[in-house]
Amino acid sequence: MLNVGLLGAGRIGRVHAQAIASHPGSKLIAVSDALPEAAASLASDHGAAARSSEEIIADPEIGAVLIATPTDTHSDLIEAATGAGKAVLCEKPVDLDLKRATECLNTVSERGKPVMIGFNRRFDPNFATLKAGLDAGEIGKAELLSITSFDPAPPPLSYVKVSGGLFRDMMIHDFDMANFLMGDVPETISAVGSSLVDAEIGAAGDVDTAAVTMTYADGRIAVIKNSRRAAYGYDQRVELLGSQGLLQAQNMLENTVVKSTADGVVGAKPTYFFLERYMPAYRVEWAAFVDAVESGSEVPVTLKAGVAALAMAEAATLSARAGKPVRMEEILKPVAK
Amino acid sequence: MLNVGLLGAGRIGRVHAQAIASHPGSKLIAVSDALPEAAASLASDHGAAARSSEEIIADPEIGAVLIATPTDTHSDLIEAATGAGKAVLCEKPVDLDLKRATECLNTVSERGKPVMIGFNRRFDPNFATLKAGLDAGEIGKAELLSITSFDPAPPPLSYVKVSGGLFRDMMIHDFDMANFLMGDVPETISAVGSSLVDAEIGAAGDVDTAAVTMTYADGRIAVIKNSRRAAYGYDQRVELLGSQGLLQAQNMLENTVVKSTADGVVGAKPTYFFLERYMPAYRVEWAAFVDAVESGSEVPVTLKAGVAALAMAEAATLSARAGKPVRMEEILKPVAK
Amino acid sequence: MLNVGLLGAGRIGRVHAQAIASHPGSKLIAVSDALPEAAASLASDHGAAARSSEEIIADPEIGAVLIATPTDTHSDLIEAATGAGKAVLCEKPVDLDLKRATECLNTVSERGKPVMIGFNRRFDPNFATLKAGLDAGEIGKAELLSITSFDPAPPPLSYVKVSGGLFRDMMIHDFDMANFLMGDVPETISAVGSSLVDAEIGAAGDVDTAAVTMTYADGRIAVIKNSRRAAYGYDQRVELLGSQGLLQAQNMLENTVVKSTADGVVGAKPTYFFLERYMPAYRVEWAAFVDAVESGSEVPVTLKAGVAALAMAEAATLSARAGKPVRMEEILKPVAK
Amino acid sequence: MLNVGLLGAGRIGRVHAQAIASHPGSKLIAVSDALPEAAASLASDHGAAARSSEEIIADPEIGAVLIATPTDTHSDLIEAATGAGKAVLCEKPVDLDLKRATECLNTVSERGKPVMIGFNRRFDPNFATLKAGLDAGEIGKAELLSITSFDPAPPPLSYVKVSGGLFRDMMIHDFDMANFLMGDVPETISAVGSSLVDAEIGAAGDVDTAAVTMTYADGRIAVIKNSRRAAYGYDQRVELLGSQGLLQAQNMLENTVVKSTADGVVGAKPTYFFLERYMPAYRVEWAAFVDAVESGSEVPVTLKAGVAALAMAEAATLSARAGKPVRMEEILKPVAK
Repeated sequence: MLNVGLLGAGRIGRVHAQAIASHPGSKLIAVSDALPEAAASLASDHGAAARSSEEIIADPEIGAVLIATPTDTHSDLIEAATGAGKAVLCEKPVDLDLKRATECLNTVSERGKPVMIGFNRRFDPNFATLKAGLDAGEIGKAELLSITSFDPAPPPLSYVKVSGGLFRDMMIHDFDMANFLMGDVPETISAVGSSLVDAEIGAAGDVDTAAVTMTYADGRIAVIKNSRRAAYGYDQRVELLGSQGLLQAQNMLENTVVKSTADGVVGAKPTYFFLERYMPAYRVEWAAFVDAVESGSEVPVTLKAGVAALAMAEAATLSARAGKPVRMEEILKPVAK
Repeated sequence: MLNVGLLGAGRIGRVHAQAIASHPGSKLIAVSDALPEAAASLASDHGAAARSSEEIIADPEIGAVLIATPTDTHSDLIEAATGAGKAVLCEKPVDLDLKRATECLNTVSERGKPVMIGFNRRFDPNFATLKAGLDAGEIGKAELLSITSFDPAPPPLSYVKVSGGLFRDMMIHDFDMANFLMGDVPETISAVGSSLVDAEIGAAGDVDTAAVTMTYADGRIAVIKNSRRAAYGYDQRVELLGSQGLLQAQNMLENTVVKSTADGVVGAKPTYFFLERYMPAYRVEWAAFVDAVESGSEVPVTLKAGVAALAMAEAATLSARAGKPVRMEEILKPVAK
Repeated sequence: MLNVGLLGAGRIGRVHAQAIASHPGSKLIAVSDALPEAAASLASDHGAAARSSEEIIADPEIGAVLIATPTDTHSDLIEAATGAGKAVLCEKPVDLDLKRATECLNTVSERGKPVMIGFNRRFDPNFATLKAGLDAGEIGKAELLSITSFDPAPPPLSYVKVSGGLFRDMMIHDFDMANFLMGDVPETISAVGSSLVDAEIGAAGDVDTAAVTMTYADGRIAVIKNSRRAAYGYDQRVELLGSQGLLQAQNMLENTVVKSTADGVVGAKPTYFFLERYMPAYRVEWAAFVDAVESGSEVPVTLKAGVAALAMAEAATLSARAGKPVRMEEILKPVAK
Repeated sequence: MLNVGLLGAGRIGRVHAQAIASHPGSKLIAVSDALPEAAASLASDHGAAARSSEEIIADPEIGAVLIATPTDTHSDLIEAATGAGKAVLCEKPVDLDLKRATECLNTVSERGKPVMIGFNRRFDPNFATLKAGLDAGEIGKAELLSITSFDPAPPPLSYVKVSGGLFRDMMIHDFDMANFLMGDVPETISAVGSSLVDAEIGAAGDVDTAAVTMTYADGRIAVIKNSRRAAYGYDQRVELLGSQGLLQAQNMLENTVVKSTADGVVGAKPTYFFLERYMPAYRVEWAAFVDAVESGSEVPVTLKAGVAALAMAEAATLSARAGKPVRMEEILKPVAK
């Protein structure tokens, strides 16, 4: 039985608490949060104790820590928790600052403790099935990847301002998905972005609509499209052209009902947002983490993968500003030791 | 080159005229119609002559006659044309009267001239592909057939009154489709029907909504559903469950555009009615007739098949009235010699 | 908080135990089973006690009983539990014997305790959405209902022999679905059935492939198709033609991945069987039961509805044997007081 | 009646000949080709005369010329035909050389004769429906366009070498589609390309897999993906995200048959290649040309639009080589007078 401490009792912390509690091999022992009432309430729901993050990290009875705190605390907490011998599952992104994330990676690497980053989409049954099909050779060699990722509505402006921007906050999921599917980081990244959804987002220095093209050392190509708004809901699709065919993961729909009238043939919209769409993925993600910790095998999404996705977000941000492609080595060299 | 005379210059006659004219192996020589202007107009469009049906049948230069006249003339014209040594393609149904149709069959059988009945749906690319899949063993042995056939809107009441009723006029297509797919006529037919679309249809003694269940000697089952009205258009679907799977032929759609908005995901409606849906089938049907005539092989839809479908319509009409299943042998015996 | 006793710790009992345990308004207190170890094991999983059914029914602390025992115990347990003042959710069917079920209904009616029958498909999000669309007038007036319900594979022959036959064991779900959607019981039922899947099923006096047509007092029509085997999985579809359109509930698929290769465009199969397909429905069903009990409103699937579905199964069984339609009044009269 | 001369009797010339012949308002008078037998054969099929291009252009009885000759003759023939007062429909691209095409545009502009470029995809019913939906405001303001255009198999290497490269030969259709849908030419074009399908194509200095991102003055974004090979057939899809929704034009399929077996649910592949997919579009294109000529209104695809698409292909070719975005003004300035 893996005893778990949860750092952060916000919306996503609550999702993870359910996953931890419903897994037969893990037990939620303690919860911390900057708001003591939030910690107390969530802890009480699961028969756990509300404590400080420091206490949780120091508790020798706790084997793993799930970090669901604000992004700017991730690196510190990962370092502290691994320093105390804990296994860690940390929400994405590792950090908004690539230099700090790289330091964290260097620090942690020496300790040999499992640190997994919460790129939950890898565990979505649809994307996982697509990946399995690719690995099984169903479409031959991958050539051209296309990821469509639209949110139903933009976040509050206050969040946009501290989010690190669309590439670090939103597209980072798609960068990780590209790495997952292509099995490599790209060589070049070329990004364009506009503020079409909300002029305030543009005024805050961010974009809300973007397209990124990436090329790989072996000539493969990937394209990612993001928008902060899709009137019809949460649009999450991947398609991958290979030498022998195409694999597509299409949207999950709210239901299977189709209505045909004089006005046309109407089907359901996609499941509304990430909690609806990816709830099963959070459970599979947690199970994969527990499996890796218990078996001593490598976690399926390493801290290094988390840093790679962050570096790609950094490259895309620079590319969109400069209006030209950025080579990944330009980004990675300065932060390499 | 097959010289063709077309008897009947109405809507369906015009469709056949195009098929005849566009086939490289046939030539439209003459057209007749009860309305001389209709014959003249259609003949002129195709560089053909307007003549009487008698003249056409008597013309030794004409090798084949296409009969697209009112139903009550079909048997007489089939007999006359085959008597004059012509190959015949006759629109469905053979007749409204099973006894007369059976006589016609007996008369014609001795002559050895090809007589094909215009069950055009067998030549629809979708149904033909389904049938080919079945014959190729893609779903093992057929077990349970389901045919959905809804018109977009009921015909004029004046037509309903002379149509012979829904089972003879509309469902006869589905009876032939069942025979085509199942490769046999059923043993029992059980029909129910209601007048739900238009009370006037009920007052005229007909039904506008009906379901028929048929059983075969080897235990297989088929279900046919008909409605005279589908608000969304012409609904023409077939599905067949076999021991190793299911084959479905779905509707053709007006276009492939999908619109996703806050109101849902909207696709196009089915192609509107039989001329839109089955236009390609009329051309394939004609080509199949020409092929059979030229090669001397059996026509793909025999007069016997046309009589069988009519007998099934008769059985369904009786079953719906009596409220009990009818055995096909009860229908066929009295008309057999 | 509703304290619940669960009678029956088999496969379906375990599903219900989860639903009870995960509902915030109910608590699983005790479990019984003919196999004491089964009861003990399931009870232990949920911190409940293993007891006899008699003890559970006698316990004044327990407010509701969920009956998931073999069918031939249902009527007795419903009577005993309501006699002890319990609310009851009982798995389908009420009984295999219509007379006994009717007695049970009469006995229970006087007691005024809520008794709900577990027709879980009413709570499937797809069928519930279809029903809501119908009630909202999206397709006008219902006219022609079609239910397709195929199992992936037949049950063991030993089960077939005690199941009461396909109509009572399998199609009973579809009879209830028809009642749910049409809002009425039919006037006539006409059934045909064959043994095409497994000759042993036929030898045991049952059918494995069947079609039923039902007519309603107002002329509406419903068709149900059943097969014990669909090579591609669990096929559960409903479509309803109305005066202004068509509503279809299509299959849930295992995932949304589509693979396009030289061999065709391949999508996922339907979710495999009822546990996969209807797991969410079991939770919604339980929540609806708790709501009704707590609020004192009528349960959404009454014991009367359970008896009605059983009577339809009885009618279909008789119709298939006799080869003619059966009027529902012939079935209901002999058992009415 | 518009008398038409057809220059070029190759594969695409034959397609146009059919469209001309089947249109009630046009008549094919004469055909020319570098291979006299080809001209003679096609002319004979349509009761037309085989002549030289010069004779056709000089014939005062001929009102319109359709140019379906090799690309390097287009500009000369457009100039000659308009000089002789003919209306012109010319196959794409206008020219491989942007400077020559621009000269042609300048020359022709003064003459006021209608010159239409054969971007037939604008007339595909699916793309036309999408455009009509956009214009009707169905998805609000366009924001992010995505065009997928994969050929089933690469052309012969001999063709690749004289084609002008993927961007000028293949993606030029997509550039025009973007202009059609976005109603504007982009401000910047950023292209990447690889040779993944066939190393010989790379050795010949071309790419076979490419992605292009375009930005517009108002911030809108468009992405085009091309591959010379899709194992499953001809993949031609467009999707456009707007402020109020998404419009997608999906592939046409060979038929509507779906096969469900233990191996999955298999549908038909897309219609195989451009002749199958776009045959209806060629007829609509011709009808639109005849309409414009007869009514004196502007042709729906102007020579200017043809030059714009060519300039975009030029920009993409340069961008892919230089590894950086190209501003359209850099391309257009040097060729502007």
